[in-house]
Amino acid sequence: MGVTRRGLIGGAAGAAIATGAAQAKKKPAPRTADVIVIGAGLAGLAAAHDVVAGGRSALVLEARKRVGGRTLNQPIGGGKVVEIGGQWIGPTQDALAKVAKELGVGTYKTFNTGSNVYYRNGILLPYRTDTPGLGAVPPDPSGGADAEQAIVKLDNMAGEVPRDQPWAASSAVEWDGQTVETWKQNNLATDNGRFLLDVGIEAVFAAEPRDISLLFLLFYIAGAGNETTPGTFERLINTADGAQDSRFVGGSQLVSIRMAKRLGKRVILGAAARRIEQSRSGVRVFSDAGLVARGKRVIVAMAPSLAGRLEYHPALPALRDQLTQRFPNGSVIKCEAVYDTPFWREAGLTGQAVSDASPVRITFDNTPPDGKPGVLLGFIEGTAARVYTRKSAAERRAAVLNNFATYFGDRALKPNAYYEMNWSTDPWTRGCYTGFTPPGVLLDYGAALRRPVGRFHWAGTETSTIWAGYMDGAVRSGQRAAKEVLAKL
Amino acid sequence: MGVTRRGLIGGAAGAAIATGAAQAKKKPAPRTADVIVIGAGLAGLAAAHDVVAGGRSALVLEARKRVGGRTLNQPIGGGKVVEIGGQWIGPTQDALAKVAKELGVGTYKTFNTGSNVYYRNGILLPYRTDTPGLGAVPPDPSGGADAEQAIVKLDNMAGEVPRDQPWAASSAVEWDGQTVETWKQNNLATDNGRFLLDVGIEAVFAAEPRDISLLFLLFYIAGAGNETTPGTFERLINTADGAQDSRFVGGSQLVSIRMAKRLGKRVILGAAARRIEQSRSGVRVFSDAGLVARGKRVIVAMAPSLAGRLEYHPALPALRDQLTQRFPNGSVIKCEAVYDTPFWREAGLTGQAVSDASPVRITFDNTPPDGKPGVLLGFIEGTAARVYTRKSAAERRAAVLNNFATYFGDRALKPNAYYEMNWSTDPWTRGCYTGFTPPGVLLDYGAALRRPVGRFHWAGTETSTIWAGYMDGAVRSGQRAAKEVLAKL
Repeated sequence: MGVTRRGLIGGAAGAAIATGAAQAKKKPAPRTADVIVIGAGLAGLAAAHDVVAGGRSALVLEARKRVGGRTLNQPIGGGKVVEIGGQWIGPTQDALAKVAKELGVGTYKTFNTGSNVYYRNGILLPYRTDTPGLGAVPPDPSGGADAEQAIVKLDNMAGEVPRDQPWAASSAVEWDGQTVETWKQNNLATDNGRFLLDVGIEAVFAAEPRDISLLFLLFYIAGAGNETTPGTFERLINTADGAQDSRFVGGSQLVSIRMAKRLGKRVILGAAARRIEQSRSGVRVFSDAGLVARGKRVIVAMAPSLAGRLEYHPALPALRDQLTQRFPNGSVIKCEAVYDTPFWREAGLTGQAVSDASPVRITFDNTPPDGKPGVLLGFIEGTAARVYTRKSAAERRAAVLNNFATYFGDRALKPNAYYEMNWSTDPWTRGCYTGFTPPGVLLDYGAALRRPVGRFHWAGTETSTIWAGYMDGAVRSGQRAAKEVLAKL
Repeated sequence: MGVTRRGLIGGAAGAAIATGAAQAKKKPAPRTADVIVIGAGLAGLAAAHDVVAGGRSALVLEARKRVGGRTLNQPIGGGKVVEIGGQWIGPTQDALAKVAKELGVGTYKTFNTGSNVYYRNGILLPYRTDTPGLGAVPPDPSGGADAEQAIVKLDNMAGEVPRDQPWAASSAVEWDGQTVETWKQNNLATDNGRFLLDVGIEAVFAAEPRDISLLFLLFYIAGAGNETTPGTFERLINTADGAQDSRFVGGSQLVSIRMAKRLGKRVILGAAARRIEQSRSGVRVFSDAGLVARGKRVIVAMAPSLAGRLEYHPALPALRDQLTQRFPNGSVIKCEAVYDTPFWREAGLTGQAVSDASPVRITFDNTPPDGKPGVLLGFIEGTAARVYTRKSAAERRAAVLNNFATYFGDRALKPNAYYEMNWSTDPWTRGCYTGFTPPGVLLDYGAALRRPVGRFHWAGTETSTIWAGYMDGAVRSGQRAAKEVLAKL
């Protein structure tokens, strides 16, 4: 069973929010606010909240008929949900934690008790996650140590990267001149170590080491901390104490849904912005629903590649436009199978696998907090997502369940329900988890990432200096953009 | 003196071509043709011509108020022009040569008599272009041989790359895993050799070695020939017998202008396509000028990054959409200074310089065929274009003329006229010379470059297997797309 592209908005909140399409039927009068925000993901909603809290008016235009951007709850019956978009929260993701707390959205630990599974060259090796060493690195006899020394090196290099201007690192020219693949070839000695780094990169970026600039990886690592805690690669890949540490009660989209509810009629759904104009006196945003929004400033809260598809008047400066040509989104298909119970727990397994099989190389236990039904989550990432996007849904399902069975036994072959979300096909997302940069882009275009263009301001997780690419970075980016705008109003 | 963004269409031909804007005033009826072509550059015009020649009807929608895409004539008085876009033709560019001949557009040799200038570390070294060795490589005592051995290596590797599917080369994974920069660091031993390769890459791609996948470079080299002649890097960079061998009488845009004239009212200017729909029965294209064009097939004849900015219904498949996120255009500002005479010729100079100064590292004599007025042409490419795009036109002009004076003497400081074209700011181009791919893209997305999506077909020089990125590739791509479409009609 697939998921419709437009997805769902939580019932009560959905009803409270105006839809542009409905308004279009009555030929809407122009809407006016000080700040027009484009995109009702976490970034746009956080921006609008802070604008309003700062005493100015805001209007949020959202293309989809739901809020939450790259987060999306999937109902699985009995009032329960699983996330088929971004879902976790971990230590140092303070901005997201604060917003969730304000809104009464609780968290709980990702299931992490027992052994993970390491599947490599046809051999299945369960391993305790509480063994000494770097938690997420399987104790592969040859590759584990190799991967660990590489991670230490990467962390040290990341320590030299200024979060707000990675292009200013003293080795930036060297690091932005090469792919992560090249660095891997030169700095890991074993096949197994290289494999572990591959899986780590795919899990973090939904892209391949060859796709990504080494400097971008280091920037990403540097951001995996908070104002007082340096980032580490471990914090990106770990479950306990890492970016996969905890989950949201009610699903991660609930944060956005409550943020939108708080904003009420300021959020307009089904209103895809197409054209943004600025003049000396203000801005106008033209959207699909026939809605024209007028204001003083615009905050574009979208991934850079999608932001580049809007029509701007006057046209954007060369650097900003070309940046949007150079910031592709990753490739991921998120797959979830629902069972009566999390049967792998009985076998002493966490539900987490690291594997060289295809298409699913990373899995998690995604069971709701009360322990039922059992949900296995598998990611198809990077090249595998690009290959499997062309297969039929039935072929994908069969391949994914086959992987699950390899890791957790044949009971995995018969789920009660199966969901998948291919974010690359979603017309308002076009790839997850995040935008990344190939070599050369941060050096020559990085300065255009956040720099406002007159009355146009840029938000979205990719613009964050901390936890870029994560929900936390999205919230931070919206708050920063709101601050920028409030200072000008 | 700058050039207006919308540019010019040649007078008589311009008058003969309908403009969408004018039609919009009278609420145009839907236009209908078998094939709707988007883009009136060489690719779109060639496609439309072949569709019509094949007995089917075609309509070409062009966003600009001129034809010619990335070619553009700049009048310099006395009925003469210089090109401020693509301009040269060379051996093996047979498709372009054939079209030009049919249309009566003649060619003449690029001025190449005397010595080139090599400027490096503050030292000016004139050198004969007819010395033995690879024509375009300056006889630098340390770097020349180094660059030559690198070029021989690249040519050999390119010989292993299938033009129509570079991702199928036996070393494709290795070559698409690294930047040209990485390969350069590993395969050239001297600073001067590396510098020469840098300038060569910048001159060919208007991008830096770190921006580009090694496999893409090899694909490009492989394409620099014809059906019976293997491509070589030398043919990309050489003047005599290379891609800069000859020029068009009346300017390169004249080819497009005459192609458009031949198509007559089938070409509609000022009609930017925004949305393309396909159904079981046909296609509809909605454009800015209020024009709706209906037909059976669409040929999108635009660079991939710009094609990605159209709205498609149904939405494009993941691979095609994500390809358009990963195919950025290069960065170039083309600068031309007009003098009474080509005074450098008197000093025995060709007007061609290779330099490590900034911003202009490559120059040419761009004097009209009758030898007056004298025109010097300088390119600001890659990083230099990204830096200089933020400076004022006056600053750019001063810096460019200063470079010209360094290479050719102080008479260069006082031109009678000065023109520049920053293709990255042009809203309908957003970068020249061409789209290129960073690492990883050809491997995972290459197959989506030409593969039609139902009734949508793809043209544009980037889709050519021969001379991709050049005017010849544009013509070939249009002809191939027409063939594809005719087979379906």
